[in-house]
Formats: sequence, C-alpha cells, structure tokens
Amino acid sequence: MNIQTEARNMKLASPKLAATSIDQRNKALLMIADALEKGKEEIFAANNEDMEAASANGIAQSILKRLKFNDQKLSDAIAGIKQLVDLPDPTGKVLLKRQLDDGLVLTRVSVPIGVIGVIFEARPDALVQIASLCIKSGNCAILKGGKETAKTNRVLFRIIKDSVVEAGLPKECLLQAELHNEIDELLACDQDVDLLIPRGSNKFVRYIMDNTKIPVMGHSSGICHIYVDKKADFEAAIPVIIDAKTQYPAACNAVETILVNKEIAGDFLPILAKAFEDNGVKIRGTKEVHDMLEGAFDVEIMEEDDFATEYNDFIVSIKLVNDVKEAADHINRFGSHHTDSILTTDDEAADYFMQMVDSAGVYRNCSTRFADGYRYGFGAEVGISTGKLHARGPVGLDGLVTYKYKLVGGGHIVGDYASGHKSFHHKDIDL
Amino acid sequence: MNIQTEARNMKLASPKLAATSIDQRNKALLMIADALEKGKEEIFAANNEDMEAASANGIAQSILKRLKFNDQKLSDAIAGIKQLVDLPDPTGKVLLKRQLDDGLVLTRVSVPIGVIGVIFEARPDALVQIASLCIKSGNCAILKGGKETAKTNRVLFRIIKDSVVEAGLPKECLLQAELHNEIDELLACDQDVDLLIPRGSNKFVRYIMDNTKIPVMGHSSGICHIYVDKKADFEAAIPVIIDAKTQYPAACNAVETILVNKEIAGDFLPILAKAFEDNGVKIRGTKEVHDMLEGAFDVEIMEEDDFATEYNDFIVSIKLVNDVKEAADHINRFGSHHTDSILTTDDEAADYFMQMVDSAGVYRNCSTRFADGYRYGFGAEVGISTGKLHARGPVGLDGLVTYKYKLVGGGHIVGDYASGHKSFHHKDIDL
Repeated sequence: MNIQTEARNMKLASPKLAATSIDQRNKALLMIADALEKGKEEIFAANNEDMEAASANGIAQSILKRLKFNDQKLSDAIAGIKQLVDLPDPTGKVLLKRQLDDGLVLTRVSVPIGVIGVIFEARPDALVQIASLCIKSGNCAILKGGKETAKTNRVLFRIIKDSVVEAGLPKECLLQAELHNEIDELLACDQDVDLLIPRGSNKFVRYIMDNTKIPVMGHSSGICHIYVDKKADFEAAIPVIIDAKTQYPAACNAVETILVNKEIAGDFLPILAKAFEDNGVKIRGTKEVHDMLEGAFDVEIMEEDDFATEYNDFIVSIKLVNDVKEAADHINRFGSHHTDSILTTDDEAADYFMQMVDSAGVYRNCSTRFADGYRYGFGAEVGISTGKLHARGPVGLDGLVTYKYKLVGGGHIVGDYASGHKSFHHKDIDL
Repeated sequence: MNIQTEARNMKLASPKLAATSIDQRNKALLMIADALEKGKEEIFAANNEDMEAASANGIAQSILKRLKFNDQKLSDAIAGIKQLVDLPDPTGKVLLKRQLDDGLVLTRVSVPIGVIGVIFEARPDALVQIASLCIKSGNCAILKGGKETAKTNRVLFRIIKDSVVEAGLPKECLLQAELHNEIDELLACDQDVDLLIPRGSNKFVRYIMDNTKIPVMGHSSGICHIYVDKKADFEAAIPVIIDAKTQYPAACNAVETILVNKEIAGDFLPILAKAFEDNGVKIRGTKEVHDMLEGAFDVEIMEEDDFATEYNDFIVSIKLVNDVKEAADHINRFGSHHTDSILTTDDEAADYFMQMVDSAGVYRNCSTRFADGYRYGFGAEVGISTGKLHARGPVGLDGLVTYKYKLVGGGHIVGDYASGHKSFHHKDIDL
C-alpha cells in the first residue's frame, strides 16, 4: 500500500462522503455497533494474542490495562457509538445567512474538514471512538494505532470498514496504516490530508509537529497547575489536589505544579505535604518550600526552569507565590496552556485568574482532571487541543467541522459596486 | 530591536489587552481615527516621499495606485474604523453554558487569540485596517508592511501606537517590524506568536508557510473557476465572466479558468471569445477549444497540468467538460479551494456544484470577485483563508478570536465520577 496514493484517492472522494445524509451516516454507525457485537469472539481472540505478546515483552501492568479489550470495554464502545447516533448532525448547519444586496444571498454552512489523519496510542477503544467521530462528522480518516494492539486493531478496523461500505458510504472513507514507516509517508501528504491529530508522548507529538506541513491539532505536553489562594477552603482543597495528582497521573490533565499563596503557606503546606505523603507522591519544590517543611517532610530542591516539567507520575512541584497575579504569570510562563485551576472562596481572585490565565481550561474549585470530552458532555473526543486556532480544549464533533460560504446571485458583478452604480445593504436573515 | 524579546514581552502582556473592556478598545479606535485626521499633512508628506522613490525606481502605474495614500483613502480608512467601533465585541461571548453536575458549571467564552503577526503588501490603508481589527478583537499585533511605503507606514504606525497607549491599552500591544530580516526573526517566534497572516505573492506566502512552526492563515494562490453549465443564461454569463476576469485581475478572487459544458460550447465559445477579445484578455485553452475557435480567435494550446496556474493578468484558461460532475472534479483537482462559481438556471446542477466543490466560497450566478470581507459585511478583513482550520474565506473579527473553557465547581473531584459515586447530568443552560 502506498499512503500517498491512497490519501489522494481519499481526498478526491471526500466530497462524496461529505454529501451523504446524516441518516446514512447514522445507519453506518448502527451497523458498526451491531457488527462489533457479532464479531466479539474474533476481537477478543485477537486481543488475547496482543496481550500475551505484550506480557512476554514485559510491558508494565498499568499499560496492559489499556491494551485489554474485554466485554466491558466493548459494551462501553458500543454504548458510545449509540450516544453518537443520538447527537445532532454537526454538518449542514446554517451559521449565517445574509442578503448582501437584492437577489444576492450569502450563507455560511458547516461542512466536514475532509481528510483527517489520527495517530493514536495502543488503546483499541480509541480506534472505535475516533472512527465513529469521523464518520458522524462526514470526515474521511486515516488511522494509525499503537503497535502493541496491532492484531486487535486489524480486526476492529476490518469490522468497521466492512460496515460502512455495506451501509453505502464511499469505500475510500477509511484507511488503516499499520507500519511505523507509514507515519512518515502520512506526514508528507500535505496536499491531501487536511488535519493531523497525534496522541501519545510529548516526544512523539513534538516529532509530528516538527515534521509536517499539515496542520496539527493536539498537545505535546500537559503541564497543569493548581493555585491555592490565601482564601482557599483548606478542607475542600486537599481532595481536589490529590484527585488532580493521583487519580490518573499519566493523563495530560493531571496536575504537575501546586502554587501556594505565601500568606497561608505556613498553615497549609504541612497539611498538603502530609496528604501527598499518604498518597505516595514525591515532593519537589523551591528552596523556600524545602526550608518550610524541613525536618518533617522530604522535599527535593528544584530550580526555576524545572517548573516546565511534566512528570506523568506520582511526583509534584510546589512553589510559593505572593498573590494571584504572580500565580497567573507563573502559569503563563511555565505552563502548557492546557488546564489550570484556582482554589479560592474569593470571587475577585477567581475572576482575575480565569481572565488572565491563558489556557484552554481555567477552573475554580475543582480538579484539572475534568478536562475531557466525555466529562464536558461532547459524547467523545478525538483529543485535547492546546493550540488556539480552530478547536481548543477537548475536541468533539464540533471540532471536526469547518464551514463554506455559499453565494447565490442573479448575474451580480463586482463592477457595479465598485462604480457606485449599486451598493450593499447587508441584511441578516433570521435562521 | 530584537523581535524575539519584543514578542516574548508582547505574549506576556497579551492577557492584559484581552482583559480590557470593549469600551476601552472602542475609545482607542476613536482616538486613532481622530489622530489620523489631525496628522494627515504629515502622513501625506511621508507618502509623497514614498511615491517619488517608487516612481524613480520605475514601479508600474497599477502598483503606484496602491501605494498612494491621499484624502480619499484616509477618509475611507477613518470611516472603516468608525464602522468597526459600531460592530459588537467579538470577545466575551458565551458560546456554551452547561451544568455538568450539581454545582459544576462549564462555560465556553470567546477570547482573543493573543499575539498575531501580519506581513502585508505595500498598501498604507492595509496597515490601518489590520491594526484596527486586532485592537477591536483584543489581539496584540506585530506588523510588517511592504518596503515601498516604509515612510508612510512609519508615520501611520506611530500615530496609531501613540493613540492606543494614550487610551490606556498596554504599551506592548502593537509593534512594527521594518527590516526585511526581521521577517525571519518573526518566523522563529513560535513560542510567543499564536498566528501569522501573510499577504502577498504566491512565492512569498509559500516561503512563510514553509519556514515557520507558527500556524499560518491565508492563501498562497487564488485559482478560481467559473463553470458555464449547459443551462446557463448566456446573456447574464458574459458580464459575470468579464467582471471576474478583468475588474481587478491581480486580485486572488479573479477567475483564472472557465470550464464550458460541451453541449453548449459550439454556441457559447465564440460569444465568450469575442467578449474576451473586446476586453483585451488573451485566451489559452485545450486543443479542443483551440480547434473550435480556429480561424476566428487566437488560442494558445495548453496542457492539462497547466490548469493549476494563477495568471493575475489579462489571460484566461478555457476547457470543455461533459457535465457538472467533471467540472467539480477538475476544480477540486486543479483549484486552490478559494472561490468557484457555477452559471446555471438548473437548481440540481447548482446544488451538486455547491455541495461537491471543496472551496471556501461556492457561488451561483455571480462573479468570484465578491469573495471579500467588506462585501460579505464583515466590516474589513485581515486576509482570505483557503485553509480549513479555524477561519475560512474572508477573515474578519470572528476569525480573530478563539475560546476558553471556564469550569466552576465546589471542590468537585473526578474520582467521584470514576468510582460511580456521582454521575454527570449535562444540562444545557439557556444563554
């Protein structure tokens, strides 16, 4: 298989998929759900082979859990597809309708992006979710999953592809890449692939961003902060911080740095350090933090530049700040513009923080771990974007469409307006 | 001046500009309008120097017209600023408000993009328009204009910058780059510049796109098409085609290729060729077109690959097609996804064309030259985007904002939802 040829064919076929009705696309999704249910023995058998190979290769228990595709994960995936069917069509929405002049009407309509390449980690449920989101939104997709679940992916992809073709969608609409070198081929398809969504390690995502001219949506790092304001409710603060750090430390929305207001540090730091100790979290901090906890808790002293570190582990950075202003400055300087939270009972400090912190998610009195498409009610997500163009934060169906302008006239020419013979009146038409 | 240092300072100051009220930003715009009026003698004197230097350098008459900044252009620019003041604030709009669970409320709010770099051609009115759009939308901007109007730009920029500072906006919010080598410095600022908007020749825009990791919005080429369907109204068709080709051939939205349905070619081609001849337009075409017009009109025979050519001149390509399907395929293959028009009285053909042509603008029975922010009623534009992410087509205020998610809770943690102790109810709140 040659990815460039396939991508070219997909690009030329993409208007056909975009022209299908939402009924056709929903029908395809329901057929996928059915076929996955019917094919479950074959899927589980392939997954067992993947699991055995992974165990033999000494892959860590925490990762094995992600590779596993069992009855529970299958029924979650099928439930997810059915939820997606119930969501409204993100395409074909009239976003603007305006009469420019008599007989000259402009409409802005949402349309699929076209061809999307998604490169994702070894998690079979991710393949099902991403393929379903792309089909619902009328986008052609090239999917490349992690090699540790190659056998599961192959079966899942075949079942999905067969179902969409049987449902009458264009056969070019889905393509699976299986070889690692095909990633580089995909990166070169800037004429035909409209968007790349890479998921995975910082290093991997950075590699993708640095080696393609295709627009990339996603995030390379998730350096999230919690600022504990002088007016924080200590009792509520501790569970939020522990949740944000330990509920799933490998996630991009886990917290990495705690900023503590100096005025309360004397009281709050020992409570916080104790909670981290109880939950097996290692503390790193400035010399000031180290000195304050000396004798009672172990703190590894860190330098300023080190605050731009994503641990993805049971490790946390702590720093003291004078006020919410210094907290916001620190976050804008060292953060990754992902998700940051303030813990406070003071509205003024909260408003300042939520206005001035330049991140996709700015939270008050809750855990950074809520940054997720499912939790936001988007049904599912293809990824989380820390970029500022197009979609930001968790990206669901809305982030998978763009728009086109349709203009209908009756022989209108610009010369008439340039000469002053006619003029625009720009009347918006109610939608 | 070091662009990277300035861009870093601008980035860190950008939340301050984003936090200003729309009243402050409108006040700054009105002060700019006033100051431009008061400073007009100084502006015209600087422009005269630029014009004299340009004439001495033998710059073509058509370009000299663009460099000129006279009373008419100044009053147009001031009128444009006042129009912008009347437009609603594009920032601070609540786009979504949803209760995720009791006491946990998610809001999606529009916010400025942050720091935008605009590199534009030698047209003093462009500087005024771009700076005003950025200020209205709360974006910091680095502006680099064409060198042929360097003196005019310097005066205009100083007047604008002084006004915004006097109006109380952060002094870091506008920066002018004047040296050509500063473009390369700007391209390296991917940590601090959120978006680049290059305007100018294909080659120049392509250079920008190929040499930066900053997201780029714009277009490198404008290969626009008109398809004359078998059910076209011949009489209305000719003025539309002539307008699209000759009203301003150097514009990106001028037509380059006319596709003519074979069934009507025998009747229509001679009429079309005569109109082109009368308007001084040179015809290039396939052998088929050449043979059909042989003896009556000069047609330079061209090869298939040549159809991806933007002439920016009084030259046109002509090809015959069997039907609207072949027309759409040709456009998707050889076009630049900018703006394409069908001329027909047949609704079915028009619907097919407008659905299947994958361009930012798809038109029926009107000139491609309407693709423009002012004509669409956006007040003004920073450019036209042929990309599919973020803004597409003419880009006005709406294209200069992104959004952030705000989440407010009362100590909510994800662990409660992961354990099944609590569950999301996702109730949308009316805006």
